[in-house]
Amino acid sequence: MRMKFERLAVVGIGLLGGSVARAARVSGVAAQVVGVDRDPAHRERALALGIVDSASPDLGHAAGSGLVVFCTPVDVIAEQVLALAPSCPEGTLLTDVGSTKAALVHAVEGSLPSGIHFVGSHPLAGSEKGGPDHADARLFVERLTVVTRTGLTDPEALERTMSFWQTLGSRVRVMSPEDHDEALAVTSHLPHLAASALAGILPAELSGLTATGFRDATRLAAGDAQLWAAIFGQNRGALLRALGLLQGRLEEFRAALEAGDSGRILALLAEGKKVREGLSG
Amino acid sequence: MRMKFERLAVVGIGLLGGSVARAARVSGVAAQVVGVDRDPAHRERALALGIVDSASPDLGHAAGSGLVVFCTPVDVIAEQVLALAPSCPEGTLLTDVGSTKAALVHAVEGSLPSGIHFVGSHPLAGSEKGGPDHADARLFVERLTVVTRTGLTDPEALERTMSFWQTLGSRVRVMSPEDHDEALAVTSHLPHLAASALAGILPAELSGLTATGFRDATRLAAGDAQLWAAIFGQNRGALLRALGLLQGRLEEFRAALEAGDSGRILALLAEGKKVREGLSG
Repeated sequence: MRMKFERLAVVGIGLLGGSVARAARVSGVAAQVVGVDRDPAHRERALALGIVDSASPDLGHAAGSGLVVFCTPVDVIAEQVLALAPSCPEGTLLTDVGSTKAALVHAVEGSLPSGIHFVGSHPLAGSEKGGPDHADARLFVERLTVVTRTGLTDPEALERTMSFWQTLGSRVRVMSPEDHDEALAVTSHLPHLAASALAGILPAELSGLTATGFRDATRLAAGDAQLWAAIFGQNRGALLRALGLLQGRLEEFRAALEAGDSGRILALLAEGKKVREGLSG
Repeated sequence: MRMKFERLAVVGIGLLGGSVARAARVSGVAAQVVGVDRDPAHRERALALGIVDSASPDLGHAAGSGLVVFCTPVDVIAEQVLALAPSCPEGTLLTDVGSTKAALVHAVEGSLPSGIHFVGSHPLAGSEKGGPDHADARLFVERLTVVTRTGLTDPEALERTMSFWQTLGSRVRVMSPEDHDEALAVTSHLPHLAASALAGILPAELSGLTATGFRDATRLAAGDAQLWAAIFGQNRGALLRALGLLQGRLEEFRAALEAGDSGRILALLAEGKKVREGLSG
């Protein structure tokens, strides 16, 4: 199935929205790309860089596009989808790139006008660098995009959403919103929390004694604090469970260190090494 | 002061020992470089790659070198230094690259023959990749090397050790072994522990849902488990204090999440972001 939209809209022209716009253009999936962003600097840069053909602060500017991709903070996507949907012609496909899925998918599904479909998406791609200047047409290439399915998801809309991400170069995996959120709490939200905690406790006078290890381990902490606070807020339950796993493991390290149990310390380190070596990159 | 040794020995020809050997050769600090390693594969590769001029499993092979750099695990350096020192001619300078300093410096200082000096060193450079194949003559360039000073440290030996690392391209900072260990517990040992914990709790079925964030945050976990178990064992007290800081911060996150206190979550994330952005790289 060859995807083609006469017009595609991105709502939020930051790193992800800008990258969706660029990738859609490069892949030929959209003849025209329009953008919505409240930030005049984002609109100006996106126009100057040729990321979008037109840009507006008004959400209504996205109406009339066959596909609208919401790339705004996770705590505002649902209300934006519900606000835009009544202005959309029948057959409009709505999706997003939010890092949490359950709260927003359930807030939207079942509340849309007939013939307007929303399918949740989460491309596992990004950067601690934000804004349209870092938009990259190849951001999704060979990355994984999770697309969500519930009992209310329209099968054709699901297929079209999957095709869209595949056209942008991404692999696609279908999950329930709840399974997505439980998994990403461990694989994404918890590492962000841990990186932030490690960075946050560094006494200022020790910054000169950090090396690449500290910098790797804390790189995520440079991400946008407001975006991540919203993500944490939308996925509190799963994140608390994931945090419990980490706290439990740190207690195991503490007990082994206090006991001087070098065999146990070695076993814990060996387990982490084995898992890490199973991951590429 | 231009450093020049007729002969330099590295004990342990892994990534660090091999890099010291290569950097010493490239910088012209040593006319001849010899290596000691119990692992025949390390000796063979180091000879094949031209990292050392000769290699032996016997520690005694290092005797007769003006400078001996111990690049073995932190829990064996002190005993090797004490074993080698009686065979060394007067004026021999001994140093190391160990990640912990207090235990080994105090085990060595005051127990050496007259005219043989040991000064502790720790270049803040390395890689999760080990072995002589990854040895890099530029590993120390623009990195920081901590050189330790105690009441027993010979001033001239300290100066010569500092010059050696500077000749290899490193910046040098003098600290007490105790200050070094307290600082590195926070900036190096704790991040390693946290990375290992994060990796270790990843359920196998979720590895496909990790992205660059998880991989950055856990990269350190791929390091040699035995080397790191030895480092943790040598720096238990300071590492437990650093771990307490992290555990306290994670409890703050937990309390904020449980209370749904989005302002507090944002403040914690903003603090981590600010610290991280103050670091380069």
